[in-house]
Amino acid sequence: MNRPHNSIMVIFGASGDLTKKKLIPSLFELYKQELLCDDFAILGVSRTKFTDDQFRQNIIEAVIKYSESKEIDKDLLKNFAANAYYLPINTEEVRDYMLLKEKLDELNALKVTHGNFIYYLATPPQLYETIVSNLGVYNLQDTPDEHGSKKIIIEKPFGFDYESARKLNGHLHDIFNENQIYRIDHYLGKETVQNVLVLRFANGIFEPMWNRNFIDHIEITSSEFIGVEGRGGYYEGSGALRDMIQNHMLQIVGFIAMEPPSSFRANAVRNETLKVFQSLRHIKEEEVEKYAVRGQYTESLIRGEKIPGYREEKGVAPDSRIETFAAIKFFIDNWRWGGVPFYIRAGKRLPTRVTEVVIHFKKTPHHLFSTDNAEQTVNQLIIRIQPDEGILLKIGLKQPGAGYKIQNVNMDFHYSDISEVELPPAYGRLLLDCMLADSTLYARGDAVEECWRFVDPILNQWKENKEIKIYGYPAGTWGPMESFDLFENSKSEWRYPCKNLTDDGLYCEL
Amino acid sequence: MNRPHNSIMVIFGASGDLTKKKLIPSLFELYKQELLCDDFAILGVSRTKFTDDQFRQNIIEAVIKYSESKEIDKDLLKNFAANAYYLPINTEEVRDYMLLKEKLDELNALKVTHGNFIYYLATPPQLYETIVSNLGVYNLQDTPDEHGSKKIIIEKPFGFDYESARKLNGHLHDIFNENQIYRIDHYLGKETVQNVLVLRFANGIFEPMWNRNFIDHIEITSSEFIGVEGRGGYYEGSGALRDMIQNHMLQIVGFIAMEPPSSFRANAVRNETLKVFQSLRHIKEEEVEKYAVRGQYTESLIRGEKIPGYREEKGVAPDSRIETFAAIKFFIDNWRWGGVPFYIRAGKRLPTRVTEVVIHFKKTPHHLFSTDNAEQTVNQLIIRIQPDEGILLKIGLKQPGAGYKIQNVNMDFHYSDISEVELPPAYGRLLLDCMLADSTLYARGDAVEECWRFVDPILNQWKENKEIKIYGYPAGTWGPMESFDLFENSKSEWRYPCKNLTDDGLYCEL
Repeated sequence: MNRPHNSIMVIFGASGDLTKKKLIPSLFELYKQELLCDDFAILGVSRTKFTDDQFRQNIIEAVIKYSESKEIDKDLLKNFAANAYYLPINTEEVRDYMLLKEKLDELNALKVTHGNFIYYLATPPQLYETIVSNLGVYNLQDTPDEHGSKKIIIEKPFGFDYESARKLNGHLHDIFNENQIYRIDHYLGKETVQNVLVLRFANGIFEPMWNRNFIDHIEITSSEFIGVEGRGGYYEGSGALRDMIQNHMLQIVGFIAMEPPSSFRANAVRNETLKVFQSLRHIKEEEVEKYAVRGQYTESLIRGEKIPGYREEKGVAPDSRIETFAAIKFFIDNWRWGGVPFYIRAGKRLPTRVTEVVIHFKKTPHHLFSTDNAEQTVNQLIIRIQPDEGILLKIGLKQPGAGYKIQNVNMDFHYSDISEVELPPAYGRLLLDCMLADSTLYARGDAVEECWRFVDPILNQWKENKEIKIYGYPAGTWGPMESFDLFENSKSEWRYPCKNLTDDGLYCEL
Repeated sequence: MNRPHNSIMVIFGASGDLTKKKLIPSLFELYKQELLCDDFAILGVSRTKFTDDQFRQNIIEAVIKYSESKEIDKDLLKNFAANAYYLPINTEEVRDYMLLKEKLDELNALKVTHGNFIYYLATPPQLYETIVSNLGVYNLQDTPDEHGSKKIIIEKPFGFDYESARKLNGHLHDIFNENQIYRIDHYLGKETVQNVLVLRFANGIFEPMWNRNFIDHIEITSSEFIGVEGRGGYYEGSGALRDMIQNHMLQIVGFIAMEPPSSFRANAVRNETLKVFQSLRHIKEEEVEKYAVRGQYTESLIRGEKIPGYREEKGVAPDSRIETFAAIKFFIDNWRWGGVPFYIRAGKRLPTRVTEVVIHFKKTPHHLFSTDNAEQTVNQLIIRIQPDEGILLKIGLKQPGAGYKIQNVNMDFHYSDISEVELPPAYGRLLLDCMLADSTLYARGDAVEECWRFVDPILNQWKENKEIKIYGYPAGTWGPMESFDLFENSKSEWRYPCKNLTDDGLYCEL
């Protein structure tokens, strides 16, 4: 197991939520597992005036509050926090970066980090450009020392449409080389997303079937149980398509649909996912109504509790047309996938939190067994990304007894069966990858732009064309019924991982 | 659900073990489930002098002792037994069949069975020919009435080599038409054997991989925990090749290897299994040592208990060369299976009772993931015929954590998950099929002959060639280590469903 070289992680937005809830607990987890370098430092940067000690105290509290570990060794946590430092600066003020430079020089000498710095931008996206420029003013992106490396991690959202993403890439490339830039998509840090690659390419039995000859269609669902949780103001500038589909779900499509890469080096993998994004058949603006459906959750009762509709949420306009649910149908125009429809949906206030890929295989070319009083066999491979990570294969077997009646049964594997410990948190995995200069699971600039290019026509129409409806759906249901119309005349429909919450009780299959 | 027409089942050998242990309990099970015809009779025939009442009492005792049902309704059992009659005759004495004819006429009138008779030969095989001839003398095989049908069920062994099987078929065909003859192989009555057909032909995902392009080799094991259990005298005239491989295991090969039939009618299915048997590459007599290994269990300690070796069993010659273990490697010379080795083994006094088919798929054409410290992925589909019926798919998934280490995991399905009740007993299923005139799961004469033709050279060499060794193996182990030599230079070997019983403890995977 490689361990990363000594380095300093500079966190911009060190007093923010992301730092508290995700970055610090993840770094502590890596520290606990002895995966960090021997000497490392965390340098928190933000406008708030903390001392080093106050920042360390914040870190201790953040780990205790947000770590997924059940038991926390207090001494270990104290030692971890002792590696943290704080510098209060105004990130929009170029002269303050002189202070940053001095502080980095000081820590670099203290910690013998050979000029290895990682800048983590955990700030609002409006600041990305300014911070990057200001880092450039003092050449903080430079790696004059042959051992030193400078990397920058950018949080989502990366742009809000194709044009803004292209501009942001331009700004970044003014200062940093592409191989210094790590665009984080925490979905790619999830074990089961990476497992898509292992499932496909470490087994001989899936790849021969993984194409238009044997697959009928592919369905990907990413549902959240929660609503906007008080962040209505932020969400009003986003929506399900931007928030989930353009980034996370298309990245999953990339892994599901890619050709086998020549190796597992970052660019080999990312070249293949890029090819998928380049092959996405763009939905023409006049076809948006046919291929995309949007919805907004409305007030409902879930287990006796009144759940407000989206338009009643704090910070949301009472006539808002921002979608909390989006579903699209599309095609990948290449030899492998020609004619195979992909159905993707994402939404908030659905019956449960689940992300899963469903590979629907074609039916048998001939029905040997009489199907009266018996189920039609449906072969589905379900890759459960979260929660209860695992895979499930649906096959038809014989009902016990005379005759040949077919019954659909499940063969399944649950990740929890082999993993004593919790699956490693996605952020930790990705931070470690960055320290090890492995960008396989980070989005490359060209891929991000391609994904925006694909969703742009839908975003435009949904914004401009007032005739395109936004359908209400009661909170706790699987989105507007109109999303089923995407399947048109086919006998297929969205899979129900669980029933509607507004029905009696909840039954989830996996 | 079809119910059979009224009929009389004539059991020859009615005082024997098979009748007590299998036939009567299976018929009662069908009666209980209301699957029998409205009016039926059992006519026991044998030399022993019973009255009807004595026979009925025997039936009641047999069901209580041997039925797999936990709770038995005594009144129901009494009603069932009331349908039984008994006729003491000397089956070798032709004149006694006049009495049989009269009794059948009487019962036929009483039970309105329209001349529907099923003759079940549960006698020693030496009597088959005589009984059939004698039935013929009184035209008891004839079906003059358009509603009446006469069927004959023959127990195994059906011959003891190709020549004797051919002769027996000849005798049978002198009197009966092939479509009246039901050669029972109780393995084909097992749910999971029939499920091989459903798995293959009701699902779209297996058949495309079910050939030489994707399958490396196929392994079939049928092991018994017990030894010869006091029947050493009988076994001395048989051996593992005759007792298990020629019939049961080759029938399973037929189902595993067959082309899709045009329908599920009996002859369509049996034409396809026949083609498989016709395509078996015969092992030349001079190659028997290379392709076949035999063994005999020797004394050992299992959980502290001393288990005698085969040669110490009652009725066994102290220098016996009858095999209690046989393993063969062979090929099926057709387009689907060209070059794919099949490995089959059967034995007594192995660590556990298990029958399973293992489909070993080929490795990936390219290893994308480094395999240092990690398992090589092995894709196997295991079809468990008995016990704990089910299927298991072995796939490689990612070990949780950084990097891409592969771990083999199991996806499985157990029949017990969908079946509240016990799986229906094989005999009952087959008896019902016969009553319904469905011979799909019975062996056709030409198929039986082909299977004998295949094993004949091995039988001959093992009998004649004193230079071919018979290897000892300690009772409770997986047969002689020499059986692993069948795999030659390949990295494959027999799968261990459980460890050796002579090791500490027993762990079975499925």
